Amino acid sequence: MSPSSSTSERPPPPTGGLFDGVLSRGPVGAAVSPSAWLRALLEVEAALALAGADTGAVPPQAARAIAVACEDDAAYDAAALGRAAAAAGNPVVPLVQAVRAAVGGDAAAWVHLGATSQDVLDCAASLLSRRALAMVAADLAAAAGAAAGLARRHRDAPALGRTLLQPALPTSFGLVAAGWAVGLDVVAARVRTVAAGLPVQLGGPVGASAGPARAALAGRLGLAEPLLGWHTLRWPVADTAGCLATASGIVGKIGLDVVLLAQGEVAEVLEGRAGTGGSSSMPHKHNLVAAVSARAGALRAPGLAGTLYAAMAQEHQRAAGAWHAEWETLSDLLRCTGSAASWLRECLEHLRVDAPRMLANLHAAGVPGADGGVPPGVGEQVDRVLAAR
Amino acid sequence: MSPSSSTSERPPPPTGGLFDGVLSRGPVGAAVSPSAWLRALLEVEAALALAGADTGAVPPQAARAIAVACEDDAAYDAAALGRAAAAAGNPVVPLVQAVRAAVGGDAAAWVHLGATSQDVLDCAASLLSRRALAMVAADLAAAAGAAAGLARRHRDAPALGRTLLQPALPTSFGLVAAGWAVGLDVVAARVRTVAAGLPVQLGGPVGASAGPARAALAGRLGLAEPLLGWHTLRWPVADTAGCLATASGIVGKIGLDVVLLAQGEVAEVLEGRAGTGGSSSMPHKHNLVAAVSARAGALRAPGLAGTLYAAMAQEHQRAAGAWHAEWETLSDLLRCTGSAASWLRECLEHLRVDAPRMLANLHAAGVPGADGGVPPGVGEQVDRVLAAR
Amino acid sequence: MSPSSSTSERPPPPTGGLFDGVLSRGPVGAAVSPSAWLRALLEVEAALALAGADTGAVPPQAARAIAVACEDDAAYDAAALGRAAAAAGNPVVPLVQAVRAAVGGDAAAWVHLGATSQDVLDCAASLLSRRALAMVAADLAAAAGAAAGLARRHRDAPALGRTLLQPALPTSFGLVAAGWAVGLDVVAARVRTVAAGLPVQLGGPVGASAGPARAALAGRLGLAEPLLGWHTLRWPVADTAGCLATASGIVGKIGLDVVLLAQGEVAEVLEGRAGTGGSSSMPHKHNLVAAVSARAGALRAPGLAGTLYAAMAQEHQRAAGAWHAEWETLSDLLRCTGSAASWLRECLEHLRVDAPRMLANLHAAGVPGADGGVPPGVGEQVDRVLAAR
Amino acid sequence: MSPSSSTSERPPPPTGGLFDGVLSRGPVGAAVSPSAWLRALLEVEAALALAGADTGAVPPQAARAIAVACEDDAAYDAAALGRAAAAAGNPVVPLVQAVRAAVGGDAAAWVHLGATSQDVLDCAASLLSRRALAMVAADLAAAAGAAAGLARRHRDAPALGRTLLQPALPTSFGLVAAGWAVGLDVVAARVRTVAAGLPVQLGGPVGASAGPARAALAGRLGLAEPLLGWHTLRWPVADTAGCLATASGIVGKIGLDVVLLAQGEVAEVLEGRAGTGGSSSMPHKHNLVAAVSARAGALRAPGLAGTLYAAMAQEHQRAAGAWHAEWETLSDLLRCTGSAASWLRECLEHLRVDAPRMLANLHAAGVPGADGGVPPGVGEQVDRVLAAR
Repeated sequence: MSPSSSTSERPPPPTGGLFDGVLSRGPVGAAVSPSAWLRALLEVEAALALAGADTGAVPPQAARAIAVACEDDAAYDAAALGRAAAAAGNPVVPLVQAVRAAVGGDAAAWVHLGATSQDVLDCAASLLSRRALAMVAADLAAAAGAAAGLARRHRDAPALGRTLLQPALPTSFGLVAAGWAVGLDVVAARVRTVAAGLPVQLGGPVGASAGPARAALAGRLGLAEPLLGWHTLRWPVADTAGCLATASGIVGKIGLDVVLLAQGEVAEVLEGRAGTGGSSSMPHKHNLVAAVSARAGALRAPGLAGTLYAAMAQEHQRAAGAWHAEWETLSDLLRCTGSAASWLRECLEHLRVDAPRMLANLHAAGVPGADGGVPPGVGEQVDRVLAAR
Repeated sequence: MSPSSSTSERPPPPTGGLFDGVLSRGPVGAAVSPSAWLRALLEVEAALALAGADTGAVPPQAARAIAVACEDDAAYDAAALGRAAAAAGNPVVPLVQAVRAAVGGDAAAWVHLGATSQDVLDCAASLLSRRALAMVAADLAAAAGAAAGLARRHRDAPALGRTLLQPALPTSFGLVAAGWAVGLDVVAARVRTVAAGLPVQLGGPVGASAGPARAALAGRLGLAEPLLGWHTLRWPVADTAGCLATASGIVGKIGLDVVLLAQGEVAEVLEGRAGTGGSSSMPHKHNLVAAVSARAGALRAPGLAGTLYAAMAQEHQRAAGAWHAEWETLSDLLRCTGSAASWLRECLEHLRVDAPRMLANLHAAGVPGADGGVPPGVGEQVDRVLAAR
Repeated sequence: MSPSSSTSERPPPPTGGLFDGVLSRGPVGAAVSPSAWLRALLEVEAALALAGADTGAVPPQAARAIAVACEDDAAYDAAALGRAAAAAGNPVVPLVQAVRAAVGGDAAAWVHLGATSQDVLDCAASLLSRRALAMVAADLAAAAGAAAGLARRHRDAPALGRTLLQPALPTSFGLVAAGWAVGLDVVAARVRTVAAGLPVQLGGPVGASAGPARAALAGRLGLAEPLLGWHTLRWPVADTAGCLATASGIVGKIGLDVVLLAQGEVAEVLEGRAGTGGSSSMPHKHNLVAAVSARAGALRAPGLAGTLYAAMAQEHQRAAGAWHAEWETLSDLLRCTGSAASWLRECLEHLRVDAPRMLANLHAAGVPGADGGVPPGVGEQVDRVLAAR
Repeated sequence: MSPSSSTSERPPPPTGGLFDGVLSRGPVGAAVSPSAWLRALLEVEAALALAGADTGAVPPQAARAIAVACEDDAAYDAAALGRAAAAAGNPVVPLVQAVRAAVGGDAAAWVHLGATSQDVLDCAASLLSRRALAMVAADLAAAAGAAAGLARRHRDAPALGRTLLQPALPTSFGLVAAGWAVGLDVVAARVRTVAAGLPVQLGGPVGASAGPARAALAGRLGLAEPLLGWHTLRWPVADTAGCLATASGIVGKIGLDVVLLAQGEVAEVLEGRAGTGGSSSMPHKHNLVAAVSARAGALRAPGLAGTLYAAMAQEHQRAAGAWHAEWETLSDLLRCTGSAASWLRECLEHLRVDAPRMLANLHAAGVPGADGGVPPGVGEQVDRVLAAR
């Protein structure tokens, strides 16, 4: 396989789907696209060569030539590599051939030195995950900020507390929004912790080699250095799955609350900037797209995380299928959670709150204490949450 | 949104991924691609107009104009529709606008008559699923045929039966392969039954309208006519999920058996046509790609099916997120199972069986009856399976 | 292990849990309890002996002695058998020893003839599943009947159709309830079909033996006779998982609708017989227990079904772990779905519908056509559903 | 409901199941049994009263009377409480009545002061989880220690590295076992971190109250004090799910390796103490119970964790079903992972390693370097792992 010479064979743009507008909002979709995977794999091959030069295993000139050849990802044909992967069982085998062809000369022999396919693919997965997790965390944090803003603005807005979806007792919308902020802060922190711990992978064909190369590669890629290879001990993938499913769970819960509060009969919140959000087909109907789409993304997380947990049953020194099952699943889980977080941010940043309606609903419910305003101590709880952020 | 006029904005080819060679083998990937979804949505809009003409609700000339405008899917820009879907919450809203623009004139008013977005998208999902399920069933049936061939050829080949992966008692490889055939036959039948029952959807904005239009549309699309709309009663999606997860389960089991029988220490089967399958990097190593890739696809099915089951909790007359969560999940489940079935077919059609090694392993295990050949009645069981197919 | 002689060692009652009232309603909990498993295993051992007598393989007198010894399940100590199972890897090994001890004399040698542990346990699972599925189907059918009754009584009750939980257009509550009835009818049929097809298992240590014994055992147990053993081809378990997850999905959807319609701000339905259902702690609050508990049971089904699908990856002639993972999971899935169906039946049989409030909500929503009563054709759709039942 | 006066109504022993020997090994089964839940609920009611006394809200004498009444869990009838829970929707409502009856007099009025049912049940869940997680971590750590011991003893034992279950290149069994130790150490640490962070719950009917009572209760129960109530923001449950699924994944991987290494054709390891482990029915067969049972428990974790993640969609201030779906699922996930960890500990503490056979298999595989002993640097990697523990 040689780098493609024709633009007509260029890989397709990362997002071409009919459903991307709804299900792939935000930056994560592009960050885990086939193109992004290709770029990450090339980055790893480049870093491997440069790390080899760092430790004296690779001639510096060869390392530089390899790094240059890996820079132009447009010179590689993702679709053709994908097809060739069918013969080898993974796309790294044909990619290495393509890189060697692009490097040419004596330097070609130094490409992929000491690495196995899984080393390169796992490193690329760690890189992609780290970047995508940072994006997820940023949207979660922005959504948390928006929730905190709602909590501050509506600190003293009485609202009906509902248990089992039945009227229960008074609370405040400030406290509700403060709860959203706390939940989002917690999961943003979880996501950042996992991102910071994602490890490099370098162990050669059976994971037995290590030496200085691994530390050097970790340094080059900015990944953590693990005590040992994790080719078939997939705690880093499981950690990623866990923080994403947890984040999706919190996002989905808040999206659910917004959907319920926006019901016609409740009408306590409305989505979207003032003056926008009308439906063209039913003029009387107000679109509720952001919370709905946030829920849609979040709903996929438990199943995808479950697959990654189940795929931890990996045989001996390289799994016969379970590793391969991770690739798309991990990408999808990052993308779905990222889309959900991005939609929730949009939702909360433009949520319009109808405090008078909240008060009216509280009164109409006829629950005890409905006339007493916000219960004692609730405002202080909101303050404590805001102060702790 | 108008149909795109430039080929440079054409939707990307259905498969551009680095992982498609391994994880999207066979025809299903293309059958559930964004382009296929676009074509199916257009087919439904065309059939809706023609069905309207059938029942006298739409002027025949307008119906023909709409059908013509829906034929050229290349005139529509899937990526732009996908982006526009973000505002509407689903891609049918901008698509209808684009079809109206393409039809033009008075006929444009008859586009999408009496339908809601979910009607069109659910019909397209049924169409896509029916076609993809047929492909899955074909590969399952072909794999079953290959397994039956193995059973016939090795009817009398003694082999070691293993329980808990320990040597147990003698059996025959013919019986093992006959079991594979039975399992594959069962799931192929399950898949065909579900495909045949997939229903049309037509109920308008809240699912309340039906009348002759639904029967006519069912006839036009070749889908079953349900007793009532199933907008939020998702048994057809659950049926699809169930038959695919079951099929993946059987495929994964057989892939697992092949992987285990191909182990270096067991060496009773080998994958691939004679003379092929060598590894370029480790000349001593024989590639085992098909069974491994079959397992990889199959491993994703339980989590994806679980998501579709969980997404059955759909509110009132249209769900606020759970319906949207189906779109990609269903596509992925069809594609993964299709890829797994296609790989298993490849695996079994070219499986090389080392009967002498089977006999040697049986003798080496030192289990009772190892010297007695195939146990009595085993050959007859194989015959019975072959006769029943 | 011998049968216990002291009542103080009797197995505990099937339901002793703090959560059983909420999560194990109805007959299925007892039908899949440890005691029920013990009885079913004994039934299978008895039927195996009698089937052996049918085919001439076992002396009739020995078969009768075995059947007698298997009748008194109270003579066996489930907890002790459970502990002893730890050494053997499954409870059938110590159970067979206990049965032999109970039978005594020459007849003891004919106990368990030709069977392996998995034969007996799988047969017991088929028996238990068939019975529990019949119970699930009965509650689903009763719930469907209740829904049909609601559809009949409220055929012409205008109601607000809601999409994405927003007011959309008019429908009727009769149509909503007819949809519930259709969904429940469909899944009850699915459950009955699976129950009717559950097969016997008899193949001996490596599944290689069959002969007339299997047909005789199938006849004795009233189970289907499969073409071949399915020791590691788990389509019957997958079929069971699929129909239960589908049923739970429909039950959960209806429970969700009830919860939403019962919200204080909507107040279109109320749970419970007139005069009941008050809350002791919050007098203003009305308990909503049945729909909530139905949802709780239903929510567990996707994960449990996913586990059973994933557990289909069973090695060679007996799985090293995946088979064992089925036992409790299958019991739980039957029990959770059974509880959900029983709760939904209770919910729908006593659902109080506030038709005037429905009309008032419809008017208040200000949607087009709100003043026109039930839309044309809706009543006829309800009639069609009722006629088809 | 009053405390039961008769021992004949005593709750059943925690484990009475036929499958407990295989699927509920170790201490966790009892720690999450119905009896343990009852004890934990009573502990929380006692601590609530004492914490109330700490803050001056409850008269000390009343608090002491309540604490005394909560000490004798045998005075409460779990089964009857479970049945009564069906009317209230959870078991805390009847339990509070029973505690009040047991306390009697004026002190009875101080029972459950300021708490809602979910406060008590969530606190009990945190208590149970913290204790069960400690047990899980202890077995994981012991298993890690056993693995480290194997790594030390077999530091220099050459072994065949296998990728995709095919012979690849030499490694050492010491490195394989060191990998197991690292994986187990990582997940034991994850489990301990989650256990340490489990928070108290106290917010009253709609989660709006807090004040000094929550801090005092946290102190009494030894639980963390959260910034805010988490009644419907379920990150603590998700954290628990994640660490358990990750732990099960690692345990399942090691169990899988043991099963594969113990295959008759590989025969590199054997389970059990020398002289034990024979099979009574097939004398030639060696029981492989521990690794198989470890896998069985681990296989259930992904589905159970998926359910807990999906159940995070909790409405408003108390969920209508999703909270209830947690109770048994969480118990099961703790128990299954605990059983798996306990079985793996048993497996690794008594694993018999056949180093000569490993060497023979390596030679027989004919892979490059097979004659060179352990590859360079592998021993040092093992040393590094052992030094870091």
